[in-house]
Amino acid sequence: MSKIITISREFGSGGRELGKRLAEALNIPCYDYQIIEMVAEKQGLDKDYVENASERDIRAFYPTTIGVRFSASTYFINQSVELFTEQTKVIRELAEKGDCIIVGRCADVLLSGKNPLNIFVYADKASKIKRCQARAKGDENLSEKEIEKKMKEIDKSRADLRKMLSDTKWGDKEGYHLLVNTSGKEIKSIVPGLAAYVNAYFNE
Amino acid sequence: MSKIITISREFGSGGRELGKRLAEALNIPCYDYQIIEMVAEKQGLDKDYVENASERDIRAFYPTTIGVRFSASTYFINQSVELFTEQTKVIRELAEKGDCIIVGRCADVLLSGKNPLNIFVYADKASKIKRCQARAKGDENLSEKEIEKKMKEIDKSRADLRKMLSDTKWGDKEGYHLLVNTSGKEIKSIVPGLAAYVNAYFNE
Repeated sequence: MSKIITISREFGSGGRELGKRLAEALNIPCYDYQIIEMVAEKQGLDKDYVENASERDIRAFYPTTIGVRFSASTYFINQSVELFTEQTKVIRELAEKGDCIIVGRCADVLLSGKNPLNIFVYADKASKIKRCQARAKGDENLSEKEIEKKMKEIDKSRADLRKMLSDTKWGDKEGYHLLVNTSGKEIKSIVPGLAAYVNAYFNE
Repeated sequence: MSKIITISREFGSGGRELGKRLAEALNIPCYDYQIIEMVAEKQGLDKDYVENASERDIRAFYPTTIGVRFSASTYFINQSVELFTEQTKVIRELAEKGDCIIVGRCADVLLSGKNPLNIFVYADKASKIKRCQARAKGDENLSEKEIEKKMKEIDKSRADLRKMLSDTKWGDKEGYHLLVNTSGKEIKSIVPGLAAYVNAYFNE
């Protein structure tokens, strides 16, 4: 059985970094933004556009909003659905190849047939804001309030996406095997223990 | 800094076994029922009575119920409060001694000043029922429905107790550092990885 590990995460919790470092520790690939790149390439579209349409604007999928948006955005909705379908296909193909970590994109739900180990990464608000500030690029100087707003929006779209695919709620412990609180911790300090936990989990 | 680990758990999730095995793996003491024994001895009371009064019948503490219960149970309420205070004292004394694991009794909240690593252990209903059936003593032959009822009651009193002491909800990830899902797993298979995680956590 392949070791498939999925990482869901709150925005700013360090989940992406955790996925990357854990993959290095386990010596397996970590797929994150590459999924977007693969979908964009297959569809001949811009990467930023794909990222936006396949995850953040997932609300466009909702049947309840279709009535409102129909006249303006039928093309957009169709393309969002198509991109999401393509993304699902890519995720399943990657998991088929062997051991890997997949960050985000509801991979925990999409790959449930492959018995992945599903990890949820979270932190308190102060830690998340601090992490966002530390990793901000030079030209991105958001205030605490703006970061908080962005955090809420992105987490909401992640929760919305999951709601479409699963009956367990995004971030509720019932949908995951392990939930890791990164408040006040350096991600690299958590990784060695986590790697040992993952190895023991799959070696049972 | 001492390694203080607290284990909160859903009834039937294997949290008590996990605490015991994790303590063995880390070579540190695990305090669970011994806390009751120590309180009973100090107060010159029966162990079963102490267990009942200090945890399960915590509802007696609630000011809202005092009016109703006052005439019948003033003595009982006073004693419950006294036992709980004594228990808190015992827990703090044990933590003062050095590295240890404490199972249940809101130790995560009571010891917050000592920066414990707080673990929550949970599982899906089917796994918990199966575990309860497997560990049932010869004369305790409960039906699935009865086990479920017992699970709900005990978890409710644990949640009620925490509500009195903390603003985070029992079982909500915000109050813990690590949440471990034991559904379909043997506790002993989880322990080696968890021990590695705990060691790395404290060695940062």
